Amino acid sequence: MTVYLVGAGPGDADLLTIRAARLLANAQVVVHDRLIGPGVLDVINPDAIRYDVGKLPGLSQSQERINQLLITLGREYEHVVRLKGGDPFVFGRGGEEVRALTDNSIRVDVVPGISSAFGAPLLAGIPVTHRGLSHGVTVVTGRSLKGSSIDFSKLANPDITLVVLMGVERRRDIATALIKGGLSPSTPIATIEWASTSSERVQRGSLDGLGELQVVAPAVLVIGPVAELATNHVETLIADLALQP
Amino acid sequence: MTVYLVGAGPGDADLLTIRAARLLANAQVVVHDRLIGPGVLDVINPDAIRYDVGKLPGLSQSQERINQLLITLGREYEHVVRLKGGDPFVFGRGGEEVRALTDNSIRVDVVPGISSAFGAPLLAGIPVTHRGLSHGVTVVTGRSLKGSSIDFSKLANPDITLVVLMGVERRRDIATALIKGGLSPSTPIATIEWASTSSERVQRGSLDGLGELQVVAPAVLVIGPVAELATNHVETLIADLALQP
Repeated sequence: MTVYLVGAGPGDADLLTIRAARLLANAQVVVHDRLIGPGVLDVINPDAIRYDVGKLPGLSQSQERINQLLITLGREYEHVVRLKGGDPFVFGRGGEEVRALTDNSIRVDVVPGISSAFGAPLLAGIPVTHRGLSHGVTVVTGRSLKGSSIDFSKLANPDITLVVLMGVERRRDIATALIKGGLSPSTPIATIEWASTSSERVQRGSLDGLGELQVVAPAVLVIGPVAELATNHVETLIADLALQP
Repeated sequence: MTVYLVGAGPGDADLLTIRAARLLANAQVVVHDRLIGPGVLDVINPDAIRYDVGKLPGLSQSQERINQLLITLGREYEHVVRLKGGDPFVFGRGGEEVRALTDNSIRVDVVPGISSAFGAPLLAGIPVTHRGLSHGVTVVTGRSLKGSSIDFSKLANPDITLVVLMGVERRRDIATALIKGGLSPSTPIATIEWASTSSERVQRGSLDGLGELQVVAPAVLVIGPVAELATNHVETLIADLALQP
């Protein structure tokens, strides 16, 4: 009669928390997103029933259907795990699932995970805060939420690192808005695709070249002087792509 | 000949990553901060040499001395762990330690941890992002960095949750600056002391009452509509403290 909302971290099973791994090993049912790494899925109790509620744009099941599934399962099983990429409360819509479950008197426990917002830059060698370069960090998504859209020009702050999740498609608009808001076109940027997996790829450049970079989702964008500290294991640095607008 | 910069997470040993726990169990030497939970210290190889470089304001060893210690140890031992509260790259000064070590040709590997910036709100029931309430999250510290100070009035954004680490001492000034910057005095706030430990305490209130709340460091401040979702295990909600300025 408990649904555990569990963060899976950025992808590598070694980056699960001990608590998450234990809950997965003991789960009767696991309801997971599409972008969960194969190593993480291997940690799940082999006898557990699995639901892939694959949340990808356009293909995703609606959040309302997922909520209903969790309520049904929470009433039927003792130990249900809702496994979410990254952290359940950082753009994971975990708050909505908690509310749906508690409104139906089902016990919920939330277990944090390494958010890609911090984990992806770290694995690329980027400290999101760094003395003299960044006093803080703002995390947003590039995708408009229903009925609202972030005004990126208001997020232009040279002292605060900006991390954008799900921002690949709109990267050109984001760069334009930030430059309009006052960020220098030469502000360093980095893109991190498939962080923590064997497909990880890091690219560096400058803000005015962000639109030209070939980036494949899922990727994390880092904008700010700390991005210059990015390193790439596979030497695909193509910073020079970003020359002139 | 490797120094592992490892995030310890918010305090509970169960919130270590699997990778962090393994590295601690195999460490020859561990250099740790003061605010590492006792459960986490129990995970360390019992034969490991331990250095407590206790970083507390006024009492801390200088970062330069810590860097020198890590360089010396990195030259002498195969497996050194530098254990830091939360995440090494979120206000952990991990970037500076990486640079000091790599400048001295010592191999460094960085392992993310659950940052208190996200973990503390989550454990208090607060999703830092939530459809309709918050489009993103900004994380800063309340403490001035050497030769610079954050202008909090510029961080006033009703659509973005603000999380302040190490902000207990300056909480009154922070609230004043945010209100001056345009945030409503009635903006919900929550304070989370000793997140994830048995001493955890959550208080709720409004921005204009933040200065009056009795808060003890270490604590995380959450400012924004999502703070209203905070729950407290030990029922010490004293939201009513925050009435009129």
